[in-house]
Amino acid sequence: MNEKINLAEKLTLLEKPYEPGIVGFINDYKLQVVKVKGPFVWHKHDETDDFFLVIRGQLTIHLRDRDIVLDPGEIFVVPRGVEHCPDAKEETEVLLIEPHGTVNTGDAGGDMTAEPRLL
Amino acid sequence: MNEKINLAEKLTLLEKPYEPGIVGFINDYKLQVVKVKGPFVWHKHDETDDFFLVIRGQLTIHLRDRDIVLDPGEIFVVPRGVEHCPDAKEETEVLLIEPHGTVNTGDAGGDMTAEPRLL
Repeated sequence: MNEKINLAEKLTLLEKPYEPGIVGFINDYKLQVVKVKGPFVWHKHDETDDFFLVIRGQLTIHLRDRDIVLDPGEIFVVPRGVEHCPDAKEETEVLLIEPHGTVNTGDAGGDMTAEPRLL
Repeated sequence: MNEKINLAEKLTLLEKPYEPGIVGFINDYKLQVVKVKGPFVWHKHDETDDFFLVIRGQLTIHLRDRDIVLDPGEIFVVPRGVEHCPDAKEETEVLLIEPHGTVNTGDAGGDMTAEPRLL
């Protein structure tokens, strides 16, 4: 049976930026926490939208035509197929929701690709 | 194109408890905010899990065998088919995520059933 998920506690288990951890599931979607610091890689997900909720800090999601700046309690859903690049000046904590099997670097791949892991 | 969603701002648009408002979508899931005060109705969703994240206040989710008590920054996912009854002593603000078309009162129906509406 499920237990409750305390996001702040789960985030203490993360050591480095851009190494997300799975904290739960809703149907075939994974709930992940991640720390963000500095720019990620430009990428897109052709098969899914991508949900970001800021827990602590400030997240900038660069889009090709504008920046979305998110403070705690703010959500942005990147539509499928839209190129984006998450970024943060200071360490920032984020809740991500995407279908199980979604790769963090989308179509870009490369060194920042993370294997799924349960926290 | 999507805009960012400020949960606190959206919650100011709600007048009464248990009248959820849709603030966005991820694929075929709706993102909803709702105010909770007092007990809801016992119900279950046989076709989907049910995601609760507390934004402000304290939410109790009664299950048949125990209570889950959630403070801000805490999530509980009610598994599909599990009877539950949300409750709060003081007005509490919650983010809900469930598939589009999910009825708030699940299998129970009744007066607390809300029509979907966009905020």
